[in-house]
Amino acid sequence: MSNIPKDIKVGKNVVIEEGVKIGKNVVIGHNSIILEGTQIGSNVKIGSNCVLGIQPSNNKRMRRINNINNKLIIENNTTIGNMVSVYLGTLISQNTFIGDHASIRESVSVGEGTVIGRASIVELNSEIGSNCTIQTLGYITGDTIIEDNVFIGPCVSMSNDKYMGAKAYNLKGPHIKKGAKIGNNTSLLPGIIIGENTIVGAGSVVTRDVGNNQVVVGIPAKKINTP
Amino acid sequence: MSNIPKDIKVGKNVVIEEGVKIGKNVVIGHNSIILEGTQIGSNVKIGSNCVLGIQPSNNKRMRRINNINNKLIIENNTTIGNMVSVYLGTLISQNTFIGDHASIRESVSVGEGTVIGRASIVELNSEIGSNCTIQTLGYITGDTIIEDNVFIGPCVSMSNDKYMGAKAYNLKGPHIKKGAKIGNNTSLLPGIIIGENTIVGAGSVVTRDVGNNQVVVGIPAKKINTP
Amino acid sequence: MSNIPKDIKVGKNVVIEEGVKIGKNVVIGHNSIILEGTQIGSNVKIGSNCVLGIQPSNNKRMRRINNINNKLIIENNTTIGNMVSVYLGTLISQNTFIGDHASIRESVSVGEGTVIGRASIVELNSEIGSNCTIQTLGYITGDTIIEDNVFIGPCVSMSNDKYMGAKAYNLKGPHIKKGAKIGNNTSLLPGIIIGENTIVGAGSVVTRDVGNNQVVVGIPAKKINTP
Repeated sequence: MSNIPKDIKVGKNVVIEEGVKIGKNVVIGHNSIILEGTQIGSNVKIGSNCVLGIQPSNNKRMRRINNINNKLIIENNTTIGNMVSVYLGTLISQNTFIGDHASIRESVSVGEGTVIGRASIVELNSEIGSNCTIQTLGYITGDTIIEDNVFIGPCVSMSNDKYMGAKAYNLKGPHIKKGAKIGNNTSLLPGIIIGENTIVGAGSVVTRDVGNNQVVVGIPAKKINTP
Repeated sequence: MSNIPKDIKVGKNVVIEEGVKIGKNVVIGHNSIILEGTQIGSNVKIGSNCVLGIQPSNNKRMRRINNINNKLIIENNTTIGNMVSVYLGTLISQNTFIGDHASIRESVSVGEGTVIGRASIVELNSEIGSNCTIQTLGYITGDTIIEDNVFIGPCVSMSNDKYMGAKAYNLKGPHIKKGAKIGNNTSLLPGIIIGENTIVGAGSVVTRDVGNNQVVVGIPAKKINTP
Repeated sequence: MSNIPKDIKVGKNVVIEEGVKIGKNVVIGHNSIILEGTQIGSNVKIGSNCVLGIQPSNNKRMRRINNINNKLIIENNTTIGNMVSVYLGTLISQNTFIGDHASIRESVSVGEGTVIGRASIVELNSEIGSNCTIQTLGYITGDTIIEDNVFIGPCVSMSNDKYMGAKAYNLKGPHIKKGAKIGNNTSLLPGIIIGENTIVGAGSVVTRDVGNNQVVVGIPAKKINTP
């Protein structure tokens, strides 16, 4: 427990493993667990019952990223809710907000000022830009790219495996460009591109690439007009 | 730890903060955390690893309700599962059941005898009536009104922001009237009204108000007959 | 705490109740709770903040299985993530993997080598075969049968109550036969049968039985060709 400044406020039954680094003015809720390799900046607030710095699994049914960075970096002024899990190999940039019950896997980067909603899941190897909003129960599959200022409504679902495990396939999640907005409970298929500032209506299934500045809706999603 | 009667059964590593009130014959599972401001009635059963009485965030990206009641009230004969999170400013009425991994935010009221399913999320400022069933993984957005005897199937999704963050907008969730039944994985759009005893088929997207005693289905949901 | 061999590695604040049995070379993460009736095989790895061996509720609004086996059996070489909840009366076969935040209820069997994804929920009285993949946020309703080698994409939703609580009904979840693949965010209705090796496209709503070796898609799901 080296590198723990004296001005942090730590709840009861908190476990902080060896080699963890913690900045100034940090609050950690009761029963939270900060595992080896976690580096926490200053003015960070962490809720209760969290598990931060989880080692990726080496189960043979799970994909494995090689040469992963063995650190979880949580930058300054970030707020993390309760019962949140975050893996090693991931960067949580400054001023982000991570809601209760959310889970973020290894080899992910979350940009500045982004909100990861309550009970949202971000799978491995995904990049989320700055000032994005991922609302509650959003599912960001592996190998996804989300650019800056994107809005992902509640319960949005994505997939990254066109053959659903049947063939070898280079896994690829959606690529959502700057300023796009995805309505609640929409399904995005593997590898599709959503253009800049494009709006996808609630409950749509997006099966093909969509250009910039469009409004699409339905199953499969089709253009309805230009905003 | 004043106001804790001697007949309660408390698990290991439980944290009960100052000012918590607890009634008679209460059971609290291991590692659960009862934060300041929580008032628990009699014959209440709380599982393990819960966090109750969470202070709402003051992150500037998150909406803030002013003058929130700084209490979480859990009435008699309520059962709360494991790993549940509930905020301050909320009322859980008697005889309710809250499933494992569920999360209920601030300024919410849950009526008597209602079931909030496993891993369901209820956002801030929503009202849920009596004898409702919210099934597993249901998403109740903020500013939603659910009247008595409503059935919400599993994985139902709602939204409350018509412009998805693009414009100032008076956030408004759905209003679901008495006895309505919403099929699994349905999407409800901001501000829509679902009439009394109306049935919405599974997987629908409801984009407009629906009257009483109707059956609607599809994308967008359309009337198919009258029960 | 009888029957606990000395070679297991137990984290801090772990609670292991009376009568728990644990095999060789087991790892249990910090703050995890192993309740009475749990039997853990050898080479099992359990993450932090889990609750295993939960007693089913006797709330009158919740269905109750009689004569439930009062044991949770976790076989050899299984890996369980963080913040996972599993009930008594359930069998987790060898070589399975259960992701973080998942929840598995009573009277369930999970076959060998199956993956239960992160934040997935398996309700009571369901049977899941061997070598299946249930991806993240999958919802397996009660009374479901999933045969071997099935792939369930992320955010798939199922229901088992045709009348949504309005009438007495013999609850029946879907029956998904060997090798079928269900695309992400699909909705499956109560009691439907999906044939062997059949593929259901993402975002579909399956309202009727589907035969073997078909590809179906849409709302309601219709055949598009034969693979």
